[in-house]
Amino acid sequence: MTRRFKLTLEYHGGGFVGWQRQTNGLSVQEVVERALESLEEAPRAVHGAGRTDAGVHALGQAAHVDLDKNWRPDRLRDALNARMRPHAVSALLVEEAPGEFEARFSATARRYLYRILDRRAPAAVERGLVWHVPRRLDERAMDEAAQLLVGRHDFTTFRAAECQASGPIRTLDRLDVARQGDFIEIVAVARSFLHHQVRSMVGSLNYVGRGKWSPCDLADALAAHDRSRCGTVAPACGLYLHSVKYGGGPGELPP
Amino acid sequence: MTRRFKLTLEYHGGGFVGWQRQTNGLSVQEVVERALESLEEAPRAVHGAGRTDAGVHALGQAAHVDLDKNWRPDRLRDALNARMRPHAVSALLVEEAPGEFEARFSATARRYLYRILDRRAPAAVERGLVWHVPRRLDERAMDEAAQLLVGRHDFTTFRAAECQASGPIRTLDRLDVARQGDFIEIVAVARSFLHHQVRSMVGSLNYVGRGKWSPCDLADALAAHDRSRCGTVAPACGLYLHSVKYGGGPGELPP
Repeated sequence: MTRRFKLTLEYHGGGFVGWQRQTNGLSVQEVVERALESLEEAPRAVHGAGRTDAGVHALGQAAHVDLDKNWRPDRLRDALNARMRPHAVSALLVEEAPGEFEARFSATARRYLYRILDRRAPAAVERGLVWHVPRRLDERAMDEAAQLLVGRHDFTTFRAAECQASGPIRTLDRLDVARQGDFIEIVAVARSFLHHQVRSMVGSLNYVGRGKWSPCDLADALAAHDRSRCGTVAPACGLYLHSVKYGGGPGELPP
Repeated sequence: MTRRFKLTLEYHGGGFVGWQRQTNGLSVQEVVERALESLEEAPRAVHGAGRTDAGVHALGQAAHVDLDKNWRPDRLRDALNARMRPHAVSALLVEEAPGEFEARFSATARRYLYRILDRRAPAAVERGLVWHVPRRLDERAMDEAAQLLVGRHDFTTFRAAECQASGPIRTLDRLDVARQGDFIEIVAVARSFLHHQVRSMVGSLNYVGRGKWSPCDLADALAAHDRSRCGTVAPACGLYLHSVKYGGGPGELPP
């Protein structure tokens, strides 16, 4: 009898073409599917909650898969980790899920984290894990401006041209900017995001942080509904899919 | 006129044979010296505060070098960073130093950080930056045992056979173990350490954390002055030279 499992996955986006299977390189989805195929002795389709782009990391991507064998969730997690080696993908948690659970469509909130290393010297230890911005940013102005993006808006300005969503309206529940020493961390929470939305918002907040834009300029860019008014999109290597929430409000997400 | 400069360096130890120049591969010292040679148009010897082993990272290695050109410290830092690319070495700070300053011999305290990822699933995002211990460790027992190593002792048990120090006596000022979620962080502070001392102490604390040793067993191992009584030495990839202090007591080190 087929049973559905929910997977919680961590990965380093650096070596992948992104979450989704592509013909031009290795994807995270392919790594997970190959491992499951060898365990189940038949192909298994893994469905992710979010299609992270090439270079984007995940601390808690969610996915579901239907399996035939009578797996104990903990054993499946360990077997999956053994088979995914040496790829930088790790199964943190495997849980049995109801048959109607869909990683993508059942999600009630997605939390992203964006990390900026804000100092003159380039990253050495955390290279590939942060966006290095050598100019000193004003994180308070960035946080003030970020609050103007929170709420239900037409996010056309912060949407990639190739975005396949049916419309540009989204409700941004949270966008917080905080400094921890030389690091600036940006947390974004919403039920769903448009393609490149977080990186587009971060790129525009960077303009605010360096004084090129005032918070009002950011509000004007949002109101323009015009992609050409977006700041330069921030690089993938600073972005993390932090977690995906199912059921309840976004306020219950882990901190 | 020659002037002496103090360098504060960050590096990812993964790609190097260690701090010190070796014939069998690229060292951090060679990366810094090559960059300085191209800037000064003559060979320059760089002297580090600590000889970190292959794979050990640094958040704040200190070094000194004598230079002929009339460098502004900030300009030198930027030029050095430009020349060290693409190696994972970053000059955080360059300062002019008095002629008698010696990175190694003027140091009054060295602080190391050891990071353990204590969870069942292997590291993906932080691979190479932590020691993965899949078994749940008791960090309170580890911290209790660690306090038995603090003070002035004969650390023969925790000293590599190839250690070149003149004697095994050292004064350990601080050895703290604390959990942050799935991470266990160990901070060690002393004026100087023996070769492999931190990794040897961490390897032995791991025995305490998993219940193989009691804190008393650790004290007995210390008192035995016997290398064969040491726990399995912890891997290099979890170790960071956090900072080196000059002047004042070790209590003034950054947290």
